[in-house]
Amino acid sequence: MNIKGFQFATIEAAIKKPGKKDLALIYSQVPATAAAVFTTNKVKAAPVLLSAQRITGATAQALLVNSGNANACTGANGMVVATETTRLVAQQLRITDELVQVCSTGVIGVQMPADRITAAIPALVAALPAGTLEDVAQAIMTTDTFPKMESRTVQADGVSYTIAGIAKGAGMIMPNMATMLSFIVTDAAVEPAFLQSVFRSAIESSFNAITVDGDTSTNDTCLIMANGCAGNQPLTEGTPQGEAFRLALSQVLLSLALQIVKDGEGATKFVEIRVNGALTTGEAKQCALAIANSSLVKTAFFGQDANWGRIFAAVGYSGVEVNPDLLSLHFDDVQMARNGIFAGGDAEQRGTEVLKKKEFTVTVDLGLGEGSATVYTSDLTHEYVNINADYRT
Amino acid sequence: MNIKGFQFATIEAAIKKPGKKDLALIYSQVPATAAAVFTTNKVKAAPVLLSAQRITGATAQALLVNSGNANACTGANGMVVATETTRLVAQQLRITDELVQVCSTGVIGVQMPADRITAAIPALVAALPAGTLEDVAQAIMTTDTFPKMESRTVQADGVSYTIAGIAKGAGMIMPNMATMLSFIVTDAAVEPAFLQSVFRSAIESSFNAITVDGDTSTNDTCLIMANGCAGNQPLTEGTPQGEAFRLALSQVLLSLALQIVKDGEGATKFVEIRVNGALTTGEAKQCALAIANSSLVKTAFFGQDANWGRIFAAVGYSGVEVNPDLLSLHFDDVQMARNGIFAGGDAEQRGTEVLKKKEFTVTVDLGLGEGSATVYTSDLTHEYVNINADYRT
Repeated sequence: MNIKGFQFATIEAAIKKPGKKDLALIYSQVPATAAAVFTTNKVKAAPVLLSAQRITGATAQALLVNSGNANACTGANGMVVATETTRLVAQQLRITDELVQVCSTGVIGVQMPADRITAAIPALVAALPAGTLEDVAQAIMTTDTFPKMESRTVQADGVSYTIAGIAKGAGMIMPNMATMLSFIVTDAAVEPAFLQSVFRSAIESSFNAITVDGDTSTNDTCLIMANGCAGNQPLTEGTPQGEAFRLALSQVLLSLALQIVKDGEGATKFVEIRVNGALTTGEAKQCALAIANSSLVKTAFFGQDANWGRIFAAVGYSGVEVNPDLLSLHFDDVQMARNGIFAGGDAEQRGTEVLKKKEFTVTVDLGLGEGSATVYTSDLTHEYVNINADYRT
Repeated sequence: MNIKGFQFATIEAAIKKPGKKDLALIYSQVPATAAAVFTTNKVKAAPVLLSAQRITGATAQALLVNSGNANACTGANGMVVATETTRLVAQQLRITDELVQVCSTGVIGVQMPADRITAAIPALVAALPAGTLEDVAQAIMTTDTFPKMESRTVQADGVSYTIAGIAKGAGMIMPNMATMLSFIVTDAAVEPAFLQSVFRSAIESSFNAITVDGDTSTNDTCLIMANGCAGNQPLTEGTPQGEAFRLALSQVLLSLALQIVKDGEGATKFVEIRVNGALTTGEAKQCALAIANSSLVKTAFFGQDANWGRIFAAVGYSGVEVNPDLLSLHFDDVQMARNGIFAGGDAEQRGTEVLKKKEFTVTVDLGLGEGSATVYTSDLTHEYVNINADYRT
């Protein structure tokens, strides 16, 4: 896959255990229009603070990213490390510091091995022409079991451009992008304000519609760089070309988000939760997230137990407007409950069959209005407990 | 233990599997001043709706309670069953229907075995003089591994009275009293408005300060009956006698609440979470609950992993005012972090030793104000997943 003007490199900087690439660089040969969305957690990692400050210029040319250490809860020294390492990258690339974004993921509260990172940067920059975006996807993995990638190629005014993205997730995934990194590169030219707005709205229905454990992290970052090397006219809002970009970008982000859920820590089920009939879209999403984050619902999915009452209990405490007598529930196309009570017949048996599948859909209708939303989640398993009880060992 | 004027009975009504008592009756020989707090879940079980309507009279004389079936999500028929079974109890006891409270706990969404309950009620009433409060504590257990009881005896104006309480909990415990039942009986005379206010405030720092899994149920009920048979002058607000009652009641409720946490499904750790230095008491509690409900924090407790960064991450997304550079954290008396960063030295080793204990305290100081709160929680374990994956089998 060729995204014109972008180069990639990865290296082993001994941040993680030996034998694993843990430092990566994405570089655009020309300054790119850029937009980013960061964690809403008030305890923000140093790289998040630095990148957020730099992205206000809406331009970026390089991204330095490491796994193995989050550089979070590391105080003033953490910011020094983020600043110094990106300065070194800028020097080696002969660009200004402000054009270098930085991201970290890994354990919180441990100081970065700054010497090992600075020692590795010259070789990292030197490795640039040889790497691929997939190499970067590999290097940013923590408890992920597979690298996450997606791309689309689109025509615009006789020119072809590509949108390619990578992501890491696994645990701690929850709307507002917990310990989630995603980087999107495109050689399309995109008008800056349009890039910002289309990126935010695509995130809302992808990364902000998935949840694994309800926790949100200190480091989440979603970054897009559009360098214009494809040679198209800059894409703008409200044009067919702009809408084609929106569609393709949404598809890339949704695919990456769903890959994250499927790789949720210890997950054995992939569950789509749809809420219809809410008073508003916001209430539909709030209700769907309450279901998706319920430990009792998620363990019932793991146990393949058609315990639909737990879903109604989650609806009831979600905080949205509910009339219990109007609630209905389907597992795929099997109606489990209507008018707030069990649907009867062979629903129990058929519903249990649905829950034995690896992927299924839970649909709740609140029967009150037109608000609908969909979120995606996984089950809660023994393996989740294993992974997170021993994360640092 | 003799609480004057109260009688108890339990029976096997075949709501649960054979061999288990599952229907119980608490009866006061005279009408008692009563107060109750019910679930805030909008999907309320039929017995909750019926009891809430009846308690508006602030008087009760009997409580019918069953385990094995929650009578929730059972529609109009569920209300018929609750109404008819309490009517039968009232007839047998020769009191008015309005004086009979009713509670249910167990599986949601399954119609009650009404015939078996009505068939059992005459024998239940006939068994009244012979039972004890502990029998009732046994009969209301679901996944509880031990019955929960506490009592205090207090002197007031030369008269001795007793406050005795029972509770059931285990899973689904979260502030606002999820799938939690607690019944308090006292032979003290208490002025009705004072009983209501003192009961609510004691619940706030006990049952509303514990959390096991963040879910809240359809059936939570906390009921107190004060029948005055001890012969004291009615207790009122702002008197030494009233304050002695407040203290004793708070102790009974806190003890019951902590027993519930210690019996949290699959729990191996009992953790007290204190947040100091918040802007307000409300923010302190909100922050403490975010920590206590974090799956990542709770699995780290289970793994005895001093992963303090996850606690700061939970603080950061709790929604309260936070300055990351002012955060400090202790595990018992071991300082793990100060000024937002690792405390250094042998904190890691000493903190790990604390987490190996069965009970410990986590103290976060936000460094912003005078708001403090304490909540109690357990760890998230394999056994929690086991219990809840297979709850109905």
